[in-house]
Parts: sequence; structure tokens; C-alpha cells
Amino acid sequence: MNNPIRAAIIGSTGYGGVELIRFLINHPYVDITSVISSSSAGESISDSYPHLNQLVELDLDQVDIDLIQKKSDVVFTATPSGISSALIPDLLEAELKVIDLSGDYRLKSGELYVKWYQHKSPLPTHLEQAVYGLSEVFAEDIRTAELLSNPGCYPTAASLGLIPALSMKKIDPKSIIIDAKSGASGAGRKLGLSVHYSELNENLKPYKVNQHQHIPEIEQTLSRFVGEQTTITFTTHLVPMTRGIMCTMYANLVEPCDEQQLIDQYRKYFKGRPFVRIRDKGRWPSTKEVAGSNYCDIGFSIDERTGRLTIISVIDNVVKGAAGQAIQNLNLMMGWDETTGLEMIPVYP
Amino acid sequence: MNNPIRAAIIGSTGYGGVELIRFLINHPYVDITSVISSSSAGESISDSYPHLNQLVELDLDQVDIDLIQKKSDVVFTATPSGISSALIPDLLEAELKVIDLSGDYRLKSGELYVKWYQHKSPLPTHLEQAVYGLSEVFAEDIRTAELLSNPGCYPTAASLGLIPALSMKKIDPKSIIIDAKSGASGAGRKLGLSVHYSELNENLKPYKVNQHQHIPEIEQTLSRFVGEQTTITFTTHLVPMTRGIMCTMYANLVEPCDEQQLIDQYRKYFKGRPFVRIRDKGRWPSTKEVAGSNYCDIGFSIDERTGRLTIISVIDNVVKGAAGQAIQNLNLMMGWDETTGLEMIPVYP
Amino acid sequence: MNNPIRAAIIGSTGYGGVELIRFLINHPYVDITSVISSSSAGESISDSYPHLNQLVELDLDQVDIDLIQKKSDVVFTATPSGISSALIPDLLEAELKVIDLSGDYRLKSGELYVKWYQHKSPLPTHLEQAVYGLSEVFAEDIRTAELLSNPGCYPTAASLGLIPALSMKKIDPKSIIIDAKSGASGAGRKLGLSVHYSELNENLKPYKVNQHQHIPEIEQTLSRFVGEQTTITFTTHLVPMTRGIMCTMYANLVEPCDEQQLIDQYRKYFKGRPFVRIRDKGRWPSTKEVAGSNYCDIGFSIDERTGRLTIISVIDNVVKGAAGQAIQNLNLMMGWDETTGLEMIPVYP
Amino acid sequence: MNNPIRAAIIGSTGYGGVELIRFLINHPYVDITSVISSSSAGESISDSYPHLNQLVELDLDQVDIDLIQKKSDVVFTATPSGISSALIPDLLEAELKVIDLSGDYRLKSGELYVKWYQHKSPLPTHLEQAVYGLSEVFAEDIRTAELLSNPGCYPTAASLGLIPALSMKKIDPKSIIIDAKSGASGAGRKLGLSVHYSELNENLKPYKVNQHQHIPEIEQTLSRFVGEQTTITFTTHLVPMTRGIMCTMYANLVEPCDEQQLIDQYRKYFKGRPFVRIRDKGRWPSTKEVAGSNYCDIGFSIDERTGRLTIISVIDNVVKGAAGQAIQNLNLMMGWDETTGLEMIPVYP
Repeated sequence: MNNPIRAAIIGSTGYGGVELIRFLINHPYVDITSVISSSSAGESISDSYPHLNQLVELDLDQVDIDLIQKKSDVVFTATPSGISSALIPDLLEAELKVIDLSGDYRLKSGELYVKWYQHKSPLPTHLEQAVYGLSEVFAEDIRTAELLSNPGCYPTAASLGLIPALSMKKIDPKSIIIDAKSGASGAGRKLGLSVHYSELNENLKPYKVNQHQHIPEIEQTLSRFVGEQTTITFTTHLVPMTRGIMCTMYANLVEPCDEQQLIDQYRKYFKGRPFVRIRDKGRWPSTKEVAGSNYCDIGFSIDERTGRLTIISVIDNVVKGAAGQAIQNLNLMMGWDETTGLEMIPVYP
Repeated sequence: MNNPIRAAIIGSTGYGGVELIRFLINHPYVDITSVISSSSAGESISDSYPHLNQLVELDLDQVDIDLIQKKSDVVFTATPSGISSALIPDLLEAELKVIDLSGDYRLKSGELYVKWYQHKSPLPTHLEQAVYGLSEVFAEDIRTAELLSNPGCYPTAASLGLIPALSMKKIDPKSIIIDAKSGASGAGRKLGLSVHYSELNENLKPYKVNQHQHIPEIEQTLSRFVGEQTTITFTTHLVPMTRGIMCTMYANLVEPCDEQQLIDQYRKYFKGRPFVRIRDKGRWPSTKEVAGSNYCDIGFSIDERTGRLTIISVIDNVVKGAAGQAIQNLNLMMGWDETTGLEMIPVYP
Repeated sequence: MNNPIRAAIIGSTGYGGVELIRFLINHPYVDITSVISSSSAGESISDSYPHLNQLVELDLDQVDIDLIQKKSDVVFTATPSGISSALIPDLLEAELKVIDLSGDYRLKSGELYVKWYQHKSPLPTHLEQAVYGLSEVFAEDIRTAELLSNPGCYPTAASLGLIPALSMKKIDPKSIIIDAKSGASGAGRKLGLSVHYSELNENLKPYKVNQHQHIPEIEQTLSRFVGEQTTITFTTHLVPMTRGIMCTMYANLVEPCDEQQLIDQYRKYFKGRPFVRIRDKGRWPSTKEVAGSNYCDIGFSIDERTGRLTIISVIDNVVKGAAGQAIQNLNLMMGWDETTGLEMIPVYP
Repeated sequence: MNNPIRAAIIGSTGYGGVELIRFLINHPYVDITSVISSSSAGESISDSYPHLNQLVELDLDQVDIDLIQKKSDVVFTATPSGISSALIPDLLEAELKVIDLSGDYRLKSGELYVKWYQHKSPLPTHLEQAVYGLSEVFAEDIRTAELLSNPGCYPTAASLGLIPALSMKKIDPKSIIIDAKSGASGAGRKLGLSVHYSELNENLKPYKVNQHQHIPEIEQTLSRFVGEQTTITFTTHLVPMTRGIMCTMYANLVEPCDEQQLIDQYRKYFKGRPFVRIRDKGRWPSTKEVAGSNYCDIGFSIDERTGRLTIISVIDNVVKGAAGQAIQNLNLMMGWDETTGLEMIPVYP
């Protein structure tokens, strides 16, 4: 093995950032050389996250492109959307590989970005260059990416569940409805009433119904497999738990379909991609069965009475929906086995 | 006021039973004269439920029809399904009014009962006589009922959300999809791995997908408003919370529709029925906003892009989904104001 | 019955404020005539709390002493500490009865207030006049109070558990250790990282160890029964739940003591005070057994091996630890039965 | 590196068993060659635990000593107490190393075992031979153990927090009070009303006050450092969370003591033992800061007013309190670095 790759993390004090640290610290081919947080620069990261005490005692740096260039080969930008797009052009200029966990580079259309994200900041540049990092599906493109746009959490769960059925023309794309549920960590560490403990505990809350910024991202991805612009119905709910996303997805079957056959076809589709696991007939995944891990588990039900297919897909939003998939993409970009550093079994119970 | 009505509760040591007690104890026109539990007969109910200490110190009786007849005017049967149907013929024979919280009298078709409930016990008799107690919708029938079949928790939330739109022919009944979520109390106090704390906490679990026994109950109710047999897609999930049901429901609009107008029409539909509250435009209810109370709160979203209506309906499954609606039905049967004894504000936070 | 009492609530949009509303709305002798919130004045309270929709549709007022005087007979000040002490002199001047739920009037010593509360605001005046409202213990004084200082949540649970043993000289006051645990609602609706959902869920956190401002309040109360200044050890923990406080308390027995005898003595001490319930031998209360109610439940264990008594006391912090006890005190001040408007059974499960 | 060690796990379908699998599967020097469960023999372990799908697809074996001998070098017995003591003599006879996670070999006195465990099964033999595996404290003895008795979860947290202070004679052993709190996984996967979801959620429950079978285990360990029989007060509570134990411990200081000095002394005591982390002055650990990991974090507070020391110690009960420490002990027994296979960062949030 050659020298390890040197990685910097911008936005290290968010949940995505610390989760990158949790995995990268044990990654055999990566050294974390810089943790960056403009809000907490100068402090040790373990001041913000005591669980890192004695394990990761790095001081947080300011954002300084020259310094990042000196200390790193690859940069993870785990910032809120609207911020990474202001930094990434300089990082690319400095010939760094960039893996962006914000939403700034996911939508190929600036117009859609403005409409759904409602930022007043300038439009991201380099949209064309950005490769969309749904690892199991776009691995070929990812291998040569310089700017990798890591998928959103909901889009990851939804797309992995739907793409095989769409590719095989099993379902009517116009009929797709996605009922999505997420734990609170998806909202990050930023304080807000909706994730105030007493408000969310023992509660189940819909939010941004038909308005979530992940809608155009999912539609953009699915459209690539449908061959024309696809429109979905998408509802999001906050569930009183920390980690986990479930997408319960409904679509009309184009023609009657055998459940076991569908399962076999999905298994074939994802053959060789260890992080997608297809449940046996009559078994559906629960979010805890992937907690703390990079797995996406998928189960099915076909209702002959209605001719509808139900697909249930779960991920850990902080792992496969953020940091884990980002590392999986790094592995692909570097030519390593995609599971490197990610071989952890879900934490259960 | 005349003498209060005397009430017996069969199945007092289940969650539905103790919730009946919580409300009835403060009901101005009802005396609880007998609490019955075949499994714990002879003990005080506060042995099983210490929260009742010094408030309800009744000894649990055996099931004894003669004794019940002597001590009561009305009987709540809060037993598992398959049990109340064995008792109710004798209770009716004894000229007692019966309000049944099990599922035994909800389906008018014995065939469907056998198919979905999978009991080996004999078919319930008196199916024709039983009045389905969706209080806001079937009040007229309820007022004269002798045998009241209290609706299931999911069917209550789903039906109240869908019936107005179906009645007004706003939506295509063939397109209805119900994504339902419930807290653990819906499974009762009976032990099981799916509601073992370490298994459900920090977890979200689908179960009985397309197989739940509430499917034919919902279809039977909706069909009355559609005018023909209606088939739905229905998925159930366990959420890591104790109380609360949310139904997120999807249907295709028959023609474009204004959201505010729809809200107004729903408010008109439920005018004079204080336990249904319709949210303002752009606001959706969360389960905690009805916790501990008999309210059913409903919100909407119309997506012009897809032509679909999303309806979100929440109840407390133990109250409006069980004990509360049972008392509301008693109130109707007795000619009292339907809110009597149920005027509690939701417990928040 | 004469005209009902008119009540104003200052700080209506905090958890204590809405809980006052939940109980007062059904109180037979009280009308809520004004809900006041300087931060949300002009809005309807149901904008902040949708669970109140159609039940309490009052607009929030500014703090205006003249207006309060015109509209009210009694004022509940449910503000953060440091704020009510600036308003109360004027309210008293206006001849209003005041029940203060902040901590400003609990400590008789201004010096201690400054030390433990660490406010920079001026010292509260009228400290002498304020009556400490531990309802079961100081009912005589409370009946004639004009300014009632409602006890803190921890001090309520701790004092009710310890006072009988101290009064009867059963335990050594120097040996008292209180291990206290609270749900998140004790921290109010104000956002903070410690009660951010993802931080508190699936977590148990100590805070303010030996530094909590309730320490001098408990010591002040206990000292009245010991006859000299008493010093305690007091630790507080945040538990991943919304409501509930438990104090597990340890003290050395002065001489060997029979557990049943002690239970009998506690029951005698609280005879006629329905909101304190003493558990039978070998049974200890859990927080949910008082949820949503005004009860304080207490259990015991004597360890003959160590000569120590363990006392476990639970309350719902928002009810008996705040709004419920405030109403209980109003009842006492008005000469009504102390349970008026508070007769609710705990919500279980 | 030579051939890996072959490990068998008896009791693989309990929470301790699957947690052993989670860690051992990535252990560089261990192969799991047999997973054993008398209750589920013949099934795949992933039938019971879908999170293991495609990761651990081993069929569960019956208990068969000959087979175990052929397939293994070391056996983990993760059974309920009373069961492993019936198997272990034969395993030792077969010259297998045994690491026992039940409580059967922890107490050196059979009399105490009978008194506190209340089993009717025969007394364990080989008590003398069993080495008590508190890894940081008894490493010397552990290195040569053939029969390793893994400590209980509470005793691990309590002993690591108290032993340094006792060794240094800082505290009066007669004054020790331990207020312990645990998540539900400590009760295992066995169903029971106390860990039924609706009963434990939003609840905090004391249990076995002064009666827990871990009391004599803690006393036995502490007595070795006190030099005489030590008696403690010990209370256990169930907290609504899955993982985590906190012991909040109180003791009288023998003489005034500086907090920073005490911290330094603890750090010195545990120097070279990476799994114990001592918090800085004024910081206390929370359970989530060790979740999923083998760390034990400890914080302090000295109250000069009372002369008492408060020690707060947290572990993940399933890891450091069970499977993790068992593997740490295996590492010591095999002469490997004690962190091998356990280098995981806590999962946060």
C-alpha cells in the first residue's frame, strides 16, 4: 500500500461531519489531516463532541484554501446548502478532489435549485462537472469524478427502491407515490422547534408536504430511467427517533407480476453491490436493521386486489444517506473496494 | 338529572379498558359498577394499574351474565376479537345495551371476517343488528342502537379523512392509498417481540402490509359513500411512541380543486361535530396535537403538478380510536350531548 | 355559585402557561380572561399551539397592568425567573392576587437568590410577603396569601418525600442525598442543545451537579422541619422523556425502623390530602403513574444491612411541579376544595 | 500471524450473543465457527435478527459438547444465569477456554449466589478457578485464565468509578451509595411487562430496590480494595432508552480533596488503559457518549458544602457491560492488544 490519502472535512461539527470522522478514523487508506469549522475554529472537536475524547483530539481549523491544499488530497464539504457552492470552485482550482454532502450540486438545473432551495445566494457553478453519487447505480461515472455530489438522504432510499422496477418497466412512473419518514438527525444539529425534544418525542409530524427540496432530485434521477420527465408525489414525516429513513413507495404495476420473481430480479440488479440487501418474500425491513451501517434494505408487497406494488426501503440517514455513501464514493473514486472502511454490522438493538 | 347509567366493562385490564375508566370516572351521568377481567378476577384493578391507586379501587369480577345484568344498564366489551362475540348474544338477551370495542361486529360479511381475522371461533351472530359507530358520520343510526360496534382505530382516522371527499366526488375511489402509522399501544398490553422495548425503540417497522384486518372495514365504510365496492391500498407501520395514529392518504382529484375551498367544504361537512378539527391551509396535524383527547385533526395538500390530493388525519388511537369514541357513542345512544365526559384538551407537550 | 374568578396568565406560551390553560379551561369556578405573552402578542395562542385549535382561540395580549387589572382577579406569572419579579410589585399594587410560577420569590434570602440564580436583574422585593406554596404542607399559610410563590418541580417531589421523615425525626438530616431525574419539559420550550432531540434521545445526561438553583430552595424548606440549617447533596439528570420527575432519596435512619410502620405514618401525615399517594410495601412508583395528573406518589425501601432509608417520589413536573400545584394553591386561596378542576386520572399508558 | 482462534457462542440469539457477533465478525484474529442456541437450533441466525442478513448467515447449532470441542478453541457462554454453570464443567473438561457472560461464576460464595440469584439449580462448581474479568483492574489474573467470569453491567460501571478512590483511601467505604440507571436492553430479549414498549416509553421506573443480584458482586469487588467486607446502598432504575448504564455514586470524602488533583489521580490510575476516559473538571459524561463502544467514561463533582464526592460513570451495557468486555478479556487471555477488534468510536448522535 502506498501512502494514505489525506482528507479534510469542512463542516466537521455537524452530524454529517462527525459521522465522516467515525468511519474515516478506521479507514485503512485515509488519514484525516484537517477538520474545519468556521463557527468553532480554534477549539478541539472533542469540546463539541465529548464522545470523541482521546479518540479524535484535532483542533478545528478556519476555512483556508491554501492550507487545505497543503494538507489534503480530498475534501469533504459537509456544510449547509448554499455554503459549499461558494467554496468548491476554489477547491477544484486547487486540484483537490471534492465530495460535497450539501445539496448544492445535485440538481442539474439552476432554475429548479432556485425554486426548491429558495436560496438568495448565487447559483452554483460547475453543475455540469458534478457527478451524482448514487453509488450502486452510477459507479462508472463516479470512478472518474473530481467533483462528487453526494445524494440526499431521502433520494438515496427512494431511488434505490424504485430504479430497478422502473428500469425493467414493471411500474407506471406516473403513479409513483413516496411516503417518507425520517428520524430527527436529518435536520442536523441546528436548533429548531420541530426537533425540540418535548415537541418531537411521542409525536409524529408531517412537514413540507409536496414541498421538500428532495422532490426534484428524485424526479431527476428517476427520469433518467424512465426516459422522460417524471413527476412524483412525495410526503415527509418526522418520526420520534434519531436515525433512520423509511420510504414506503406505491406504484401501479404495468402488468401482473410475481413477487418472488420481482425479488429475484432486484437481487440480480444489485448483484455485486453488497450494501443493498433485498428481503425475502413477506419480510419487510425496519430502520433499526440498518442503524449505524451503510446498508439499504428493501422489501416488497404486491397486492393483486389493486394491482399495486409497495416497495419499502430503509437506510440510516447519517450513513448511507450521508457520510457512509460519501466514503463509498471516495472508495470508488480511488479505485478501492467500495466497502473499505464501511464493513460495520448494524448496531442492534 | 335522573339516576346515572350503570356501566360494566368487560376486559378492564387492557389499555382500552383502563382508558374507558379514565373517562367514565369523571362522566357526570355514568357510574362504573363493575370491572370485569377473566384473567385477573379477584384482584383490585390498581394491582395491575398502580396509576389508579386510591382513585379506582374496584375488585375485578369474573364474567357472570346474571351479575352483570343486575349491576349494569350498559356493557362495554373491550376484549380481544373472537371473545366478545361469544358473550354478546347473552348480554343482548339480558336486555343490556352493548358497546363492543373488539372487531367482531364491524364486518357485515362473515366471509370477510373469517378471511381477514383468521379466527377459528364460530362466526359472530347479530351482525345485522350491530350499528357501526363512526360517531360523526352515522349518528342517526347510533342513537337507536342496542348493539354498537365501535370502529377500529385505523378505520376511524382513515374514514373521517376520506368520506367528505368521496361524498363530494372530489377524488377517484380507485386511486386511494393509505399510508398508516401507529404507536405501540394499538397492539395492547399483550407481550410480543414487535413491541418489546428494545426492538421498537429507535425503530420504525412496517407490518401486515396489504394484510391488515382493518382493510375490509375501511373498504366497507367507504363503499357506502362511493356506491360500489371500493378497494384500497393500505400499509401499517409501528412508530416508536405509545399513543397516536396518523393516516397519510393519497388520491387522484377528479378535477382540479382549490385547497381553501376544499377546507371550507370539509368544515361544512363536519359542522356541529366538535371532535373533528380541520387545519388551515398549509398546516398539517401531528399526533401529539390530539394526545389524550377525542379529537380527530385533518389537514390537506393539493399538488397541482400531479393532480393528487394528500389528506393527513390524526387521532389518539386509545381515545378516538377506542375508548373515547365508545363513550361518544354511548352519549349518542343515551341522547346526551356527544361531548359529555370527553371535554378534555389534548395533553401537550 | 357566585361569578367565576377571572384569571390572567402571563407567559402563556411556555409549557407551564399552556398547562394552566388545559386545567383552567375546565375549572368550574375560573374564567380565563387574558392570556399574555410579550413575545407573541397579537397572535392567537393556537398559532403557537395547534392542539388548542377551536378549544382556546384567545389572542395573546401585551403585558399591560391596567388592562390586567380591569380583566382579572388573579394573575398567574409563568415567566422565566428574573422577569416576574419586575412585574409583580405593580400587580400587587393593583390589588390582584398573584401566583408566581417562576423562581423569583422562593428563596427568602436575596443573597442566596443572587448566588444560585446568577441573575444581574435587581433583587425581588416583597420576599417577606410571598407564601411558599407547597400545598400539602403549608395549606394554612396559603389560604391567606396574596402573593403565592409556587414551588419548583424538584423541590416539590423532594420535599413531599422527605418532610414527614424529618418531622418525625426518623432520619439524620445531614445524611440526605437526592438523586433527581427529569424529563425534558422541565427545560421549557426554549431551544437548547441539551434538549435538542438528537442529543437527548437514547441518552441520559447529568447536569448542574451540585449547582442546581433548586438546592437552596429544598434546603430552606427542609430546614424548617429540622430546626436548623440543613445541607443536602443534590444531582440532576435529564431523562429521554417529556414529562416526569423522580427523586430517589437516601438518608441514614436514626434508629432501626419498620417499613410498614413508616408507610402507615406517611399515610397518616398526608391524611386528607388526596394528591399524595403512598405505595404499599415493596412497591415503588414510576413517573408514568402520575403523568398528566397532580399526584405525587411515594414509595420506600429500608435496607437493614446499611441502616439506610430510600424514598422514591414521583410527580408530573408540568402539573404537580408547576401548573397543577398552582391551581391547587388557587383553590386553597379561594377557599375551594383543593382538588377542584384537578380531578383527572393519570394518562396511562 | 498464525491461524485465527476459533470461537463458539452459546446463547447466540440473546442481545449479548448478537453483540459478540457484531464485534467478532471484524476481529482480525478470531473466526466464529459455531453459533449455538438451544431454542432456535436449525434456523439461520438471520431469521431471528434480519440486520445480519447476508453478513452472518450461520445456522444455529444445538448445544453439543463434542461438536463444540471439534470446532472451537474458545467458548463464550451468553446464557441466562443458572444455565451456563451446567455446561461449563464439560467445556473445561474438553480443554476449551471459557468466557462466561452469565452471573454464575461471579460470586465466590455459593451462599451469596443462592441468596441473591434465587435459583433452585445446583451450585456452580469451579468457583475458585473462575477469574473475575474486570479488564482494567484484574488484567494480570485475566491473562492466565481458563474460565473467565465476565462482570455484570452495573458492577462494571460502578467498580471502575469507585476502585481508584477506594484504593487511594479518598472516601469512606461505609458511605457509598450507588444510584444506577439502565436502558431496557439490560433485561435482554425475553418478553416482560416492565420492558413492554407502552409501559416503559415516557416512563422511569425503579426496580429491585436494595435487592438486585449485582449488589453482592459489587461489594465483593470493592471489598478487595477496602481490605474488609464493604456494604453498599444500590438502587436500579429502568430508563426509556435501549442502551446505556449510568451509575451516579456518592461517598463521603475522608478529608478535603481538590477536584483537579482527583482527576489527575484517576487518569494516572487508568494510564495505559484506553477504554477508561476521565472527563475534565466540570464535565460529566452522558450515556450516549459511549453508545455502541467499549468505553467507560467517568466524571466527578466535589461538594465542599457537604464534604461529599459524586462520581458519575457511564458504559454501554451491551458492550463494556457484556460483549465488549468479554472480547477485551479474550484479547488479554490470548496476549493480544486489549483493544483488538474493539476500536470503534461511539455512535453519535
